[in-house]
Amino acid sequence: MISRSLAVDLPSHVGEPVRIAGWVQRRRQLKSVTFLVVRDRSGLAQVVLPPEADAPGEESVVEVLGVATANPQAPGGVEVAEARVEVLAEAQPPPFDLYRPTLPVGLPVLLDHAPVALRHPELRRRFAVAAASVAGFRSVLDGLGFTETHTPKLVGTATESGANVFDVDFFGRRAHLAQSPQLYKQTLVGVFERVYEVGPVFRAEPHDTTRHLAQYTSLDAELGFIRDHRDVMVLLTQVIAGMLAAASELTEVPISPPEIPAVHFLEAQELLAEHTDEDPRGEPDLAPAHERWLSEWALREHGSDFLFVTGYPMSKRPFYTHPDPERPDSSNSFDLLFRGVELVTGGQRLHRHADYLAVLDDPEPYASYLEAFAHGMPPHGGFAIGLERWTARLLGLRNVRETTLFPRDLNRLAP
Amino acid sequence: MISRSLAVDLPSHVGEPVRIAGWVQRRRQLKSVTFLVVRDRSGLAQVVLPPEADAPGEESVVEVLGVATANPQAPGGVEVAEARVEVLAEAQPPPFDLYRPTLPVGLPVLLDHAPVALRHPELRRRFAVAAASVAGFRSVLDGLGFTETHTPKLVGTATESGANVFDVDFFGRRAHLAQSPQLYKQTLVGVFERVYEVGPVFRAEPHDTTRHLAQYTSLDAELGFIRDHRDVMVLLTQVIAGMLAAASELTEVPISPPEIPAVHFLEAQELLAEHTDEDPRGEPDLAPAHERWLSEWALREHGSDFLFVTGYPMSKRPFYTHPDPERPDSSNSFDLLFRGVELVTGGQRLHRHADYLAVLDDPEPYASYLEAFAHGMPPHGGFAIGLERWTARLLGLRNVRETTLFPRDLNRLAP
Repeated sequence: MISRSLAVDLPSHVGEPVRIAGWVQRRRQLKSVTFLVVRDRSGLAQVVLPPEADAPGEESVVEVLGVATANPQAPGGVEVAEARVEVLAEAQPPPFDLYRPTLPVGLPVLLDHAPVALRHPELRRRFAVAAASVAGFRSVLDGLGFTETHTPKLVGTATESGANVFDVDFFGRRAHLAQSPQLYKQTLVGVFERVYEVGPVFRAEPHDTTRHLAQYTSLDAELGFIRDHRDVMVLLTQVIAGMLAAASELTEVPISPPEIPAVHFLEAQELLAEHTDEDPRGEPDLAPAHERWLSEWALREHGSDFLFVTGYPMSKRPFYTHPDPERPDSSNSFDLLFRGVELVTGGQRLHRHADYLAVLDDPEPYASYLEAFAHGMPPHGGFAIGLERWTARLLGLRNVRETTLFPRDLNRLAP
Repeated sequence: MISRSLAVDLPSHVGEPVRIAGWVQRRRQLKSVTFLVVRDRSGLAQVVLPPEADAPGEESVVEVLGVATANPQAPGGVEVAEARVEVLAEAQPPPFDLYRPTLPVGLPVLLDHAPVALRHPELRRRFAVAAASVAGFRSVLDGLGFTETHTPKLVGTATESGANVFDVDFFGRRAHLAQSPQLYKQTLVGVFERVYEVGPVFRAEPHDTTRHLAQYTSLDAELGFIRDHRDVMVLLTQVIAGMLAAASELTEVPISPPEIPAVHFLEAQELLAEHTDEDPRGEPDLAPAHERWLSEWALREHGSDFLFVTGYPMSKRPFYTHPDPERPDSSNSFDLLFRGVELVTGGQRLHRHADYLAVLDDPEPYASYLEAFAHGMPPHGGFAIGLERWTARLLGLRNVRETTLFPRDLNRLAP
């Protein structure tokens, strides 16, 4: 039997018998000929049938035997002629036309029908970009001696903040879904020095926004024996470059500057006060509109789609944040803005046991975490990248639901 | 400043000034000299100090400046002499001696003190083996055109079996933690043809066994356009070979036969009836003792640490299982036994919409899943490998808790 060819490989088989398989993306019955456009994981192939052929409908799964034949008007310059079609699975007509360049329905309908909508080549491509980006993330860290880990998603009382957690009935006890692997990845710096994890995190986010999900994929890294947060920023710059390089095989990507520009939080507020109608000085955080303005400023002044904002006030950062020794109200932490949105949060963490005892009102729920610090932890830090946000900003999509296969939020638990 | 060297690289710096950093694994104060054994992510390094030195205690985090000096009695043949030690973080003495070849405590104590116990080089190595195995899994599948996916861990009413699920309060509604990505990975065959996922799965396992956890890491793969389950077994054989090759850089691995021996379920029962004191014929499943005997048989008769058992009765397999067209009571499914334990379950799935409607008593909770089949799904199948079981069997460890960083079970929600 002839082995299966992918659509993308047909041009190298011109004049030969071929076997292809896939879904009928479009059936066009003209007076003198019937065309089937067959979609497989590589792309599209045109199949030519006699006009009277009993051609299967759209989304039917077919196997086609025929001869690869040059035709400048066919996609890729080749079509399958003298075709015999076997239907592997019948299909009901799809709820919308998958052959149109853009799906002719709004986001809620797409998400309701995700099992079919995701088959659209443009939607499918988004997740290929996400997968390539994750491969780039891992590749950089593997090359630097990091160890990949898998940590608990079911946790006891200790969480980073206590807010927005999902409750789980754990054999009659109350547990939570982990909001991040933060406490575990720090603990594991004590074991492996350098760790990363790619996995789901859970936030019972009560607001319906374009930037938040109840579950998303977090790309976490943490490393020991750093000088301060600037070593973490150097690592993140390398990681971003690796993710862009991997994604660049599938989509246009911004230039990754060898050094990402950085602005201190207080300096960012000065810029906003000077150049916009607002005066945010004294505020403990940046509003989304401020992040957008700063991103535009970085693009204008530094030609960069990325901008580090460093030195966020300690008052708004989690308990494990390391203060700036020179300015104890400021932290050795940073956000990375990417095209107007906060993409990454990171920084240096406290590493001395006594420092944790000083900042935790009630250390008891953190007993296991604190055991790592009691028994020696190096200066360390890390960061977390939201994969869905990354892909959305990279592809210029507004809503993180557009880069999530099956999103979960306040209103959505299916499909 | 001299850049940091790892312990493993010291032999290439003999005679040079070096800087190392890590944890004090052992402090030995002799009459004429004090030795520190410093542990970093690469291994161990011996540091020589004068006898009167105020040497830091075990698990202290230190940075050491000195001269790499050949000494055949030192680990790796090199030690750091003329050393100056800076303590980066003090440490309380560890709850057990981490410098002993084997930790001198039982599993419950190890698990209670995992943040420290995992630092033991022998324990740490297990997770390096796991990480390498996962990299091998991905590498084989990436090479075959698979797409990596991230699917919901919070699901509505539809689960594979309905049994042993954890309940979650999802914004006031009841949700479950996903027992596997099964239904999603099948749906995504309709999108990408070939998909894999590495992620946590959750089972509210009410029994305290050496083989079960409430959360484990599942290596899932699924592919379309197969002939039947035998194509899935061919893929799995490649994946296992890739995982073994990746792990072989860190540990001894069994030979991966180019073809893994396979025995039909009914034939396996005949073997057991003929060669053991038991007669399991007529039973719908294999008991753990049967799996152990069959594994020994495969090693004896075929020289293989792996054995496929095919054709399990339909009555004990999930609803999506494809029957054997020749013997409809048997399924086109398989288990892969590895050294006495079921490591992988897989097989061909139903792919026609009508077949699902025939087997599901109440299709309504599966509406989104069934949408994929209504709109055309190719013949497909896949498998799931339990990472912790894999690593335990590979390293000859009895209990999956020994290859889980922070296990979760009936009795354990911390650390």
